Amino acid sequence: MHKARLEAFSDGVLAILITIMVLDLHIPRGEQLSALLPLLPVFLSYVLSFVYLGIYWNNHHHMLHAARRVSGGVLWANLHLLFWLSLFPFVTGWMGENCFASVPTALYGSVLMMAGIAYWILARALIAAEGKQSILAQAIGADRKGVISVVLYAAALPLAFVHLLLAQAIFVGVALIWLVPDRRIERILPRETD
Amino acid sequence: MHKARLEAFSDGVLAILITIMVLDLHIPRGEQLSALLPLLPVFLSYVLSFVYLGIYWNNHHHMLHAARRVSGGVLWANLHLLFWLSLFPFVTGWMGENCFASVPTALYGSVLMMAGIAYWILARALIAAEGKQSILAQAIGADRKGVISVVLYAAALPLAFVHLLLAQAIFVGVALIWLVPDRRIERILPRETD
Amino acid sequence: MHKARLEAFSDGVLAILITIMVLDLHIPRGEQLSALLPLLPVFLSYVLSFVYLGIYWNNHHHMLHAARRVSGGVLWANLHLLFWLSLFPFVTGWMGENCFASVPTALYGSVLMMAGIAYWILARALIAAEGKQSILAQAIGADRKGVISVVLYAAALPLAFVHLLLAQAIFVGVALIWLVPDRRIERILPRETD
Amino acid sequence: MHKARLEAFSDGVLAILITIMVLDLHIPRGEQLSALLPLLPVFLSYVLSFVYLGIYWNNHHHMLHAARRVSGGVLWANLHLLFWLSLFPFVTGWMGENCFASVPTALYGSVLMMAGIAYWILARALIAAEGKQSILAQAIGADRKGVISVVLYAAALPLAFVHLLLAQAIFVGVALIWLVPDRRIERILPRETD
Repeated sequence: MHKARLEAFSDGVLAILITIMVLDLHIPRGEQLSALLPLLPVFLSYVLSFVYLGIYWNNHHHMLHAARRVSGGVLWANLHLLFWLSLFPFVTGWMGENCFASVPTALYGSVLMMAGIAYWILARALIAAEGKQSILAQAIGADRKGVISVVLYAAALPLAFVHLLLAQAIFVGVALIWLVPDRRIERILPRETD
Repeated sequence: MHKARLEAFSDGVLAILITIMVLDLHIPRGEQLSALLPLLPVFLSYVLSFVYLGIYWNNHHHMLHAARRVSGGVLWANLHLLFWLSLFPFVTGWMGENCFASVPTALYGSVLMMAGIAYWILARALIAAEGKQSILAQAIGADRKGVISVVLYAAALPLAFVHLLLAQAIFVGVALIWLVPDRRIERILPRETD
Repeated sequence: MHKARLEAFSDGVLAILITIMVLDLHIPRGEQLSALLPLLPVFLSYVLSFVYLGIYWNNHHHMLHAARRVSGGVLWANLHLLFWLSLFPFVTGWMGENCFASVPTALYGSVLMMAGIAYWILARALIAAEGKQSILAQAIGADRKGVISVVLYAAALPLAFVHLLLAQAIFVGVALIWLVPDRRIERILPRETD
Repeated sequence: MHKARLEAFSDGVLAILITIMVLDLHIPRGEQLSALLPLLPVFLSYVLSFVYLGIYWNNHHHMLHAARRVSGGVLWANLHLLFWLSLFPFVTGWMGENCFASVPTALYGSVLMMAGIAYWILARALIAAEGKQSILAQAIGADRKGVISVVLYAAALPLAFVHLLLAQAIFVGVALIWLVPDRRIERILPRETD
């Protein structure tokens, strides 16, 4: 019951976030193809953020599927994650409208990093509620992938001022790593249910 | 479980898309009926896109109703479909504000085509997860209607520069074909459940 | 299953509509109370539409609660209703920003009337799917309240050009009539479940 | 059934409200960090409102979890609460854009107060539907925390014109009090289910 409503609320917020980002694709004046050209960076940053929010929805989905209990701490850890994700439309729009300049890129990376940390906290809160012997705890384990992502985002912040392209390559690269859904949970779950 | 959350998320995104399009109907200055006149093309493109999103919701609903299992690939194929649908408010607004000019009409058709292809991919991903002997595979079959729609959208792209009205007639015509819900699935399902 | 997803989608659209209307309450320049004054008509029209959408959600909720089957026709009748409701933010904003002038008031009344007719069609589609002996058919019956509302909205259209205040009084009056949830269905249902 | 749809609708509205507030963080011109500076008060008021809406979602969730029946009165009491919450984006934006000036701060406090009162009414409506001996009635009891909050908001209104900082401290302080989920209900529930 608790879990179902937590999922429904998170799905709602994620669905809205992934959709209102498109409002920053302002409809251009002029009917020529050239009128779309200035929108290209905004569009590219939109695609990147769409993929990231899709990844978060996917992993959130898998993690909560493995969870059985939801404590008060989990509710707040989840809201904390949603808070950082809610800043995606803003940082995506700012980065896109400034053609991936240094400061907006670093801010984008900061929000990615904070969301990554918030996801890690949520995983800890869920494990704390489930117990260390739970399926979820085994499935998540040390969460190496999550920790490495946060470290890479952190590295991208100074890089945005030194080697901009490398910082952006990190954002794209980490997204590609995560495009594969969290197999760890899928691997453990069937064993348990056998 | 997995399926329920996939449906809930898709419904959320579709509900938001179908609703935020109305935000491009900017409230006009002036209180006379004549103040509404310039909005007419925007309104017409809104109606067309509302019907298309309604069709997608309807068919998505029917297809997933027949599905039993949701794989990781299905989750991503679904997000891919939602991505193209998320561009509807943008292309609808651009086409409407430029009175159905050639380039915006062609872009609208491109997004329709990409969404059609994404829907086809989603159907394949579902069949791959369900097996070729599943109800779903039988119900969808060769998906002639879907393939013809995509071909017609593709034909509409060059037509938008040669014979604009014909391109628009294709969009309206394909919508009318789809207004009938996917009887194939309804036809097969009862046999199975008997 | 079908019904659950229809309700979820309708709830989503209604929740978004009732919420995005507030975006037409543009944040005023200036920090004095006087800066809010020009917003008063927009606020009042917002309250009226909030109540109307609340009524639709409430009655939609009651009607579908009594329904058991959802046909393809019902899905489209429901989308048709949602289409007219989706125009609420636009007509509400236009009426509010023009201080309840004649033409915007008449347009607001037209959308109310079309939504009323669409609701009536949805009720017929549901009864057709359920059968004339169904609880729903008995509960809705001749739907005198719905028919009278549509007639009153229709009467308000010419009145908006002759006696503006009377037209607005009709909108408020009909809302008050509907504030009471549909007791007919509540009255019949317990009998059946006894 | 009734309860499930009430929760779904409320979750939808709350998810949208908590998300569209971010649209008032207008993307700034300029790519320097200094371009973000004028947004700081808007951001701070966004954080405060995000926390408040999170609290409302959390408590609403707990309260309805303990409820068993939903009457027509409850539906309307719930819509009444959602109405005041729907004004959050507006008052949050106005307060933020005017750097927490007196009148916008007082208006923000008024909406907080009205939402607090609406929540109290909803609790009474639920208790009326459940009966005085119900778990919910015992769990909520005299609702001292809710009453004190409303009194503090009321005190903040005149304070906003005399000692602005104290009024804002009240908003933050009350939020902190509520950050802890409603233990009363959690405390009672297990006893009952034992």
